[in-house]
Amino acid sequence: MENEKPLILVSNDDGIISKGISVLVNLMRQLGEVVVVAPDSPQSGMGHAITVGNMLRLYNSRTFEGIQSFACSGTPADCIKISKKYALDRRKPDLVVSGINHGSNTSISVLYSGTMSAAIEGAIEGLPSIGFSLCDYSHEADFSHVEKYVLDICSQVLKTGLPKGVALNVNFPRKTNEPLKGIKICRQARAKWEEDFDRRHDPSGEQYFWLTGKFMNFDKGEDNDEWAIANNYVSVVPCQFDLTAHHSISVLNDEWDIVGKSETANPIKTNE
Amino acid sequence: MENEKPLILVSNDDGIISKGISVLVNLMRQLGEVVVVAPDSPQSGMGHAITVGNMLRLYNSRTFEGIQSFACSGTPADCIKISKKYALDRRKPDLVVSGINHGSNTSISVLYSGTMSAAIEGAIEGLPSIGFSLCDYSHEADFSHVEKYVLDICSQVLKTGLPKGVALNVNFPRKTNEPLKGIKICRQARAKWEEDFDRRHDPSGEQYFWLTGKFMNFDKGEDNDEWAIANNYVSVVPCQFDLTAHHSISVLNDEWDIVGKSETANPIKTNE
Repeated sequence: MENEKPLILVSNDDGIISKGISVLVNLMRQLGEVVVVAPDSPQSGMGHAITVGNMLRLYNSRTFEGIQSFACSGTPADCIKISKKYALDRRKPDLVVSGINHGSNTSISVLYSGTMSAAIEGAIEGLPSIGFSLCDYSHEADFSHVEKYVLDICSQVLKTGLPKGVALNVNFPRKTNEPLKGIKICRQARAKWEEDFDRRHDPSGEQYFWLTGKFMNFDKGEDNDEWAIANNYVSVVPCQFDLTAHHSISVLNDEWDIVGKSETANPIKTNE
Repeated sequence: MENEKPLILVSNDDGIISKGISVLVNLMRQLGEVVVVAPDSPQSGMGHAITVGNMLRLYNSRTFEGIQSFACSGTPADCIKISKKYALDRRKPDLVVSGINHGSNTSISVLYSGTMSAAIEGAIEGLPSIGFSLCDYSHEADFSHVEKYVLDICSQVLKTGLPKGVALNVNFPRKTNEPLKGIKICRQARAKWEEDFDRRHDPSGEQYFWLTGKFMNFDKGEDNDEWAIANNYVSVVPCQFDLTAHHSISVLNDEWDIVGKSETANPIKTNE
């Protein structure tokens, strides 16, 4: 190999001109060859959306000096998908990183997170993938306290890889006067958003709504990401894209009268 | 209670005027009081997207005779969120159903599925929730062979509920001359989409792309949803929204040099 530096694909959901991706790109320069494919506009809350009923644009971008970068009109998941052929020339990246998100993606927010959808899309492709988020929604958030941790975590993953089918959801507490206490491997906290909708009326008198909400944490444990962030730790949650609730398969097989009743003579039961 | 019929909330991702939701609404009429909140336009592939950077509209719709129904400008997850206050008057539905989707949501497609995001949003709210999909993409698909199964599954769930934190992903084979063989409780098949992008040029000569792809099934098991559909069974996968790869927590704690290294004097290790 002429070039033995690892190849690192960077994306995000706040868009290619956000501060968070610029911090991440400058850190990744220290670890390898960087290619950026990121949304051309904010895609927060896009979950694992992909663009199926519309076309996509992909533009060369000059956002990062000396780094091949592309802005895409689609979602974070689209960015990872299109990168293979049109940004990486089918070279396989050694690492996919997404972020650094301006705002928390702990707990249930992982489902709504565009940042994490890019990382999970990387994991689906079999690539070591990490989403980074800072629990600070400000456009001008201070990322200085997390830089060491981003480098440590990426170096660790480049060295030891990740379990198959797993992407990491890394969240950082916002900057305070206290130094971070270190890294904690966590589970997703049991919590949800209690929505409210702010109802307004447009100049024609028609109603419209803004989604707002309160975060409700029901989790009393100390091994979850909400606890870690509240206690000034870096939280690292290994996330999987197999959504099967495996423990429920036997429950349904036992409880349901309608399983095994077949229209043919040979009912076959699930054999998990 | 004056009205003891179960309250059933219906949504989908193909939009309120699709054939699939109309089939589902007419089946649900047989089981209870129905309220519909569905997207005003197709939202396929929206994954678990929510609308955070834009406002939402919610309109009274006259799509279904004698049934209170609303069209929403947002995603399927938005529809479930806004229904609580503005469609259900804070009454708690006994069942949330989404679909019937025109097209498969088996295996990895569950992540991209707007149909399933409505069901998972219901499960997050603690409500028994089911997403239904027919493996036939035609707008005029024949749903006649699945009606009995939709009624059976909904009646079963109304009777026995669902495990906490679990929504069902139900897929039906497309209609053929063979009768369906019955219901199989399955796990999500190990498979992925191998994307390609169809590159075209607009009248100004600028390139644009359409996402296309081949479905690649790597799963050799007979207990997964792909096998069930290929063998003319109705597949039912219990899905969870806790994405934590719990088995990987100890792997990372063991393998990572950087865990437990603290900037303070008292490193605390994860205790799962």
